[in-house]
Formats: sequence, structure tokens, C-alpha cells
Amino acid sequence: MATIKHGNGTLGLGALSKDSGLHKVEIGRPATGPNDVAVDIQFCGMCHSDLHATNGEWGIESFPLIPGHEIAGVVREVGSKVTKFQVGDRVGVGCFVESCSTCVECKRGEQNICRNGCCQTYSSMYPEGKGHDECAGYHTNGGYSSNITVRDEFVLKLPDNLESHAAAPLLCAGITMFSPLNRHVLKGGKTRVGVVGFGGLGQTGVKIAKAMGCEVTVFSRSNSKKEAAEKLGAKLVAHSDEEALKAAANSLEVILDTVAVPHDVNPIMACLEPAGAYVCIGAIPQAMEISPFALIVKNLQLEGSLVGGIPETQQMLEFCSKHNIAPDYKVIKASEANAQFKALQDGTAAIGRAVIDMSTLKDVMLTTESTNDPRVR
Amino acid sequence: MATIKHGNGTLGLGALSKDSGLHKVEIGRPATGPNDVAVDIQFCGMCHSDLHATNGEWGIESFPLIPGHEIAGVVREVGSKVTKFQVGDRVGVGCFVESCSTCVECKRGEQNICRNGCCQTYSSMYPEGKGHDECAGYHTNGGYSSNITVRDEFVLKLPDNLESHAAAPLLCAGITMFSPLNRHVLKGGKTRVGVVGFGGLGQTGVKIAKAMGCEVTVFSRSNSKKEAAEKLGAKLVAHSDEEALKAAANSLEVILDTVAVPHDVNPIMACLEPAGAYVCIGAIPQAMEISPFALIVKNLQLEGSLVGGIPETQQMLEFCSKHNIAPDYKVIKASEANAQFKALQDGTAAIGRAVIDMSTLKDVMLTTESTNDPRVR
Repeated sequence: MATIKHGNGTLGLGALSKDSGLHKVEIGRPATGPNDVAVDIQFCGMCHSDLHATNGEWGIESFPLIPGHEIAGVVREVGSKVTKFQVGDRVGVGCFVESCSTCVECKRGEQNICRNGCCQTYSSMYPEGKGHDECAGYHTNGGYSSNITVRDEFVLKLPDNLESHAAAPLLCAGITMFSPLNRHVLKGGKTRVGVVGFGGLGQTGVKIAKAMGCEVTVFSRSNSKKEAAEKLGAKLVAHSDEEALKAAANSLEVILDTVAVPHDVNPIMACLEPAGAYVCIGAIPQAMEISPFALIVKNLQLEGSLVGGIPETQQMLEFCSKHNIAPDYKVIKASEANAQFKALQDGTAAIGRAVIDMSTLKDVMLTTESTNDPRVR
Repeated sequence: MATIKHGNGTLGLGALSKDSGLHKVEIGRPATGPNDVAVDIQFCGMCHSDLHATNGEWGIESFPLIPGHEIAGVVREVGSKVTKFQVGDRVGVGCFVESCSTCVECKRGEQNICRNGCCQTYSSMYPEGKGHDECAGYHTNGGYSSNITVRDEFVLKLPDNLESHAAAPLLCAGITMFSPLNRHVLKGGKTRVGVVGFGGLGQTGVKIAKAMGCEVTVFSRSNSKKEAAEKLGAKLVAHSDEEALKAAANSLEVILDTVAVPHDVNPIMACLEPAGAYVCIGAIPQAMEISPFALIVKNLQLEGSLVGGIPETQQMLEFCSKHNIAPDYKVIKASEANAQFKALQDGTAAIGRAVIDMSTLKDVMLTTESTNDPRVR
């Protein structure tokens, strides 16, 4: 068995190679530094990104790789300089765990777009000079695990009336939709909102936008999700239906597009009012064709949006707590994680997030081969 | 000779067909309605758009067509309800002459993006219900002419210390650059500005941005315009030079792209800081390829910008007057207009706008054939 360099007996569900599926492995975590918070993980949401990353689609070649960036747990230990958190606090960790803290973006709380590159919760290399130089050359590992150690700036407080398994998926799906809505609705005063795609992100966006007082239109390929959209107080336009699209022309102030596969955005963009904004959220790897002329004649904006900063994530948690918003989700056992990955891969996953109950990790058998890998800490 | 329906003996330089070049023709103008201002035109700038429109590139098939939307002149007559203007006032008319006046965009002074379609100074059909139903079925004609009649809302006051021949080209080139700079710099607080292309628009943009206190970087294909850019206080990056582009990465908050021919914007966009804005100004008819991923990881915006509204155009004139800003231009005779069109077509035009001195129109011979066209009014 390989040395656990900085070990505290952490167990995780990770990929051993890009086609391995998830195996139970033993990894190390950094010792708790003066500014660190050590968290015992209770729940971790399963995001489609986790699948992409462990499948090798993001070019990651360093294994074992433990995914998971929708983490809810309880503080087990705090470093000597930590004042904001105490042992026993219910906390969350989202999509990133370090950033430079010195650039203008970090200083205004937008660590997500740190110009020096933020460190993602899993699959990023540990940054130097952040108190964990013993981890140099190793990548971060995520929340499909028994615990995680994170600098206090990147730890979120879970509001009292927000259950931990509900909070977990908000830390990615929630903030991803809240951030552009915060910018355009709460700060920008817009009220007529479109949401393209009615999966986990789309539904969460509808709930948040409705709680902000918006009129919401969902764009979906067909009318099959019409009832589900109406249940949330939104109307649905099938964007395969030219007449329906035409009727919605010039009707919206902002559209959030959550669809992560290539599609023609131009006909949906025509539903924006002049000076409206089209927000790309689904990270399509392929380039899309945009007509500059269409942008110009209506002063339209096309913008990208990547999760949100830490202060905004905290604000999102308070907002969702106050308005009783959670994504649709179901709690699953650790032993069911591979089946859920397969369902995500095949597109047969039920609507809503799967959230792993990490207390069930003990029931999964340790994959002994994994522990021979020298990169296992 | 054809009937001049609503005539007042207006003469103009217009295209008789899409390949005819400019000919002197006689046209009609609407009678001065209660809200109208009749303007004797002194100067009209020649915009590249004028060439596109008269060449048939914009699909216009209604001739004769008099181009020109950079108009400076003197009020000859005002309608009974006009209070803002008096006979003898120095005034300007820009890119559009009517809009619905009832939509939210018009109400907030953004007639340029009127959702019901603004009426351009030339080549738009006269809108109904605006006091000139006698013009139904006719298109508007622009400023390469002796006079024009325009509703008072669309007439601009020329500040005292801004000469009319300098003001004329500001009414298109000036406002086109001022509007996004107003949005991002004066209102948005940005200070590091890029300008792509160093033709008439680009130079005017540099002058305005410098007067706003910005650091300005010009992107040009080569270094040939380096000295000219530096003379205006800007630095120049040749965007064919990968090393130079790399050195400028993440250095700008907003980039205004004035280039109207297809080009790859992605490497230039990489010079934006996180949360930066890339403004498309050059109306490229072809779609461009944009990476949503690149927009997302830095929260970038790509936006279109179409001239500006009337209040903002007035603000631009005051700003340029105060800061002594004018595009580079030369005053030419009406008889030289065809040669200038050819130079624009061939790409051999000298830097700077040509502004036609309309008093020289009398020296051009009337093209008699033109007056047999029934659409001549």
C-alpha cells in the first residue's frame, strides 16, 4: 500500500483511469493549516461535470481523481487563525477552493474569475505559496469523500433552515443560475427572464427567478416539459416551433442558456428585447456561430457566466434558505454512484440531482489496486 | 420631367440604380408639418455605409436613392408646434429621422434601437401616422442634398464652438464610438480601452476615449499606423503579432471593434480582463465563430452597438465641443463625391472622412434622365 503522505485516513470514490468508473480509494488530505477548516463531509451532489472530468473529456490524466464540488458537511477542526468557523458548524464547499486573493477580481469577491486562475475543488494542481507546499505536484480531490480541508475564505456557512442535502447541489447549480440573475434582475432591474433547457440548472433557475418576482419563459426542444414548467409558474416555448418562437419575439430582457450541447442560439436570441442579454451557461466546447449584425441592430449582449464568487454564493444560500428553494434532488448511497454516472452518460437520469450520502461510503469495498498508485496520498 | 409631389425644389446627389454612381437629381421633400424642422444643408459627411447602400449591397431597390446621414445645416423653417428650434439655428441630423416614440426604448431616448424599427435617414420607408402620410410608399432620402425636413425630436443642436463641417461626421462616427464608451467608461467606470481598426471610427474612438481619461490600445493588422496612434496618445498592438498579443493578454476592460470585414476576434478578445466587454461595431454581414467556453471562463461579454439615441448624440456633441474633438476630415466639392466613392470602394481613400460642401451642388450638372423616374418626387 502506498504512503499516505499527509494522510488522515480519508476515503473517497474516485476514478483510477479515465474509463475506470468510480472506485473506493484511500487518499491523503493536507494537515489543517492555521487558516484551514477541516470538514467531515455528509453529502455531495453529483454534477454532470464530475462525469466529464473523470471520463477524461477535460484532458485530466492524473489519477486517482475524486470528483465532487457540491459539498455539505460539519466542521471537524479549525486552524489557529480561523475566526469565522467553529467545530460543529454546518458548512459547504463549492466549485473552487483557492485563488490568488490579490487580483482585482479576488478583491471584489469574484474568486471564480481570478485572473491568475482559481483552483478548482478537484482536478486543479495545488497552488504554491498557499500554506500547502507539501502538496506541490498533486491535484486537488473533491467531495465524493469522507472529508476535505479548505482555507476558510472558501468555506460557506449553511443557513439554519436549509438542510445539508438540499444545500449541496445549490453550491454548483444554485450559484450558477443565481449569479447572472443577481446581476441582471436584483442589480439590473430586469424582470422578464428566459431559461433555455429544463434540466437541473434550468429548473433551479426558474425557481430562483420566480422568487425574485420575474415572469419566466422556459425554452425546451418540445412541449413534453410544459406541465412541469407551469407547475413552477413558468410558461414553456418549444424552440422547435417557429410560430411559438415568433410569438415570443422581443419579449424577454435576459435569457439564461443552460444547454451544454451545440445548438443554434440565434432564433432564441431573437426573443430578446433591444438591449437584452443572452447568458451562456452551458459550457459547449465547440464554437458557436453568432451574427454580429443581429447583436448590433438591437444592442444585444452575449455573455458567459461561470458559477459565482464566494460572497455571492453565501448570498445565494441565504436567498434560497429564505425562499425555500432547492433543486430537485434525491439522496443516494455511495454504492449507487456508478449507476448514476451511467444514467447521466446515457441521458436516462431522472430529473433532478443525485446527492450522495457520504455516511454510506463505509459500506463500499475498498479497491485495493488503487492504493498501489504512487499518486495516492 | 416627373412630378415633384411634395416638392420644394430640393436637389440631391443620388444613385439612379445600384451601379450608377452619384448623379445630380431633383427630389421632393415633405412640406413642413407642425412638428417639423426644415433644414438647409451646408455639409454632409460621406460614410462607408452610403457606398454599401447605393451599391445595392443592402438590398435596396428603390431609386433614385440619396445617401448621407452626417448632416449639418441651418434651420430654414419650423412647424407651428416646434419650440426647441428657431430659424437660423445651426443643427444636425444623424442616422435616423423617425421612430415609434412609444416603446420603452424610444421613451428612454434610445430611438436607435426602437423595437418597432427606427426610420433611417435614407433608404427606410416613411412610417405611417407620423404626419407625412403623403409620403407613404416612398423611401427617405439623405443628406447629399440641399435640404431636409425632419421631426424636431430627431434634430440636434450644434454647440457654438463646434464648426458645422466638423460636426457633420460626428453624427455617425462620433456617436457610434461615444455610445459604447459612455456606457462602459463614463457610466461603467472602466478606464483601459482597446480599439480594433484605426480608420475613421477607430481614430474618433481613440480621441473620445483619451478625452475621457482612458489608457488606449489600438489593434491594427500591422505596425504601419503605430506613429499615428502614438500621436493620439495610444499604443498600438499589431494583432498579426502573436507575441504582442500575448503581452497584452488580460490588460483591457473594454474593446471596441470597428472592423467591418470578417476577422477572428477570439485572439483579440483574450486581451480582455475577466468580466470585460467586447463591443462589435463594424457590421460584418457574415456570422462569426465565438467560443462560449472562452466567454464563460472569464465572464466576458460580447455586445453589439448601433450608433446611439438622440439625447446621447446631443451629449456627444457637447462632449466633443468641450474637448475639441473632431474626426479627421477634409471638405470636398459635390463634384468630387464620385471620386471619393471610388476611393472608398478601392480602399485607397486617405485617412479621414470626406465632408461634402453642399453649396457646391449648384456647380454639378443636373442629370436629366433621372427626372423621368416616377419615384422621383
